[in-house]
Amino acid sequence: MMGMAAVARRGPQPPGDDKTTMLVRKIPDGSVIDHIAAGKALSVLRLLGNPQEHGFTIAMVMNVSSSKMGKKDIVKVEGMEISQEQVQKLALIAPRASVNIVRSYRVMAKKNAVPPRTLRGILSCTAPTCVSVREKDSAPSIFFISGRAPLRYRCKYCGRELDEKEISSQLG
Amino acid sequence: MMGMAAVARRGPQPPGDDKTTMLVRKIPDGSVIDHIAAGKALSVLRLLGNPQEHGFTIAMVMNVSSSKMGKKDIVKVEGMEISQEQVQKLALIAPRASVNIVRSYRVMAKKNAVPPRTLRGILSCTAPTCVSVREKDSAPSIFFISGRAPLRYRCKYCGRELDEKEISSQLG
Repeated sequence: MMGMAAVARRGPQPPGDDKTTMLVRKIPDGSVIDHIAAGKALSVLRLLGNPQEHGFTIAMVMNVSSSKMGKKDIVKVEGMEISQEQVQKLALIAPRASVNIVRSYRVMAKKNAVPPRTLRGILSCTAPTCVSVREKDSAPSIFFISGRAPLRYRCKYCGRELDEKEISSQLG
Repeated sequence: MMGMAAVARRGPQPPGDDKTTMLVRKIPDGSVIDHIAAGKALSVLRLLGNPQEHGFTIAMVMNVSSSKMGKKDIVKVEGMEISQEQVQKLALIAPRASVNIVRSYRVMAKKNAVPPRTLRGILSCTAPTCVSVREKDSAPSIFFISGRAPLRYRCKYCGRELDEKEISSQLG
């Protein structure tokens, strides 16, 4: 159902034909989010409020090779500067992501997604016996960061640790 | 919340800096789906079975300008040749889409999304009194095409017509 698997590149050089390539113009103003974990680009778009549904021009690639990460996604949103609050949330679903703010075709600012030390009311503990699960009203969710690469958070109450995969699936 | 609206391009020419541009290499093998209605690229991905979740390399742009359509999306899937069945379904959510099958960097086949004349069991009639709604078992959904650009289908039983927007929202 999925068709061919990826094949090795063959001998002939690519011709200059615009049906087989896609050149994305440099954006005059906007944000470039690089080093998103492969496959998470759509979660990033959702986190940004689905700008494509509001008319923003978007360019993205998914599952492209990365020396840093093996595979990655990249999202570019024209005419939108991502806020610090959005960058913080981004840190949770794309911990290795870097955000470049572009103005007049130049990179004006770089924001690295830095996961917060404490998360309140964002994550859900996966230990069924944890007090934050059994008595949600008296014990609201609190998690402390316990690892950055890879990203890990530890429940304040019971010590259960959530890994990147669990965090992404809760937020994504 | 959305940040800046799109601004007019300013004087300076874009420099050759790879943080502000994204050159997507020509794909050796795969499919290029062009002239997708703006904002429908993600529906197209879903229709193709979300190839990005299966490791396929994807490139896409959304809300780019098009002389033919005003605005459009483009989706490129490396290493995947879209089947005729998928092209037919594509015709329903992206009626103006064109599919280029690429091999060895060259366009080997063009498939235009041609909506089928008759659709059985795909669309749901929106007329609450229609027999296909009231007695689903004895009157399975049947729609005939009644327009191509824009796309319209007419219920066989009651004559209710569905427009592109309704069709897309049912399938998308």
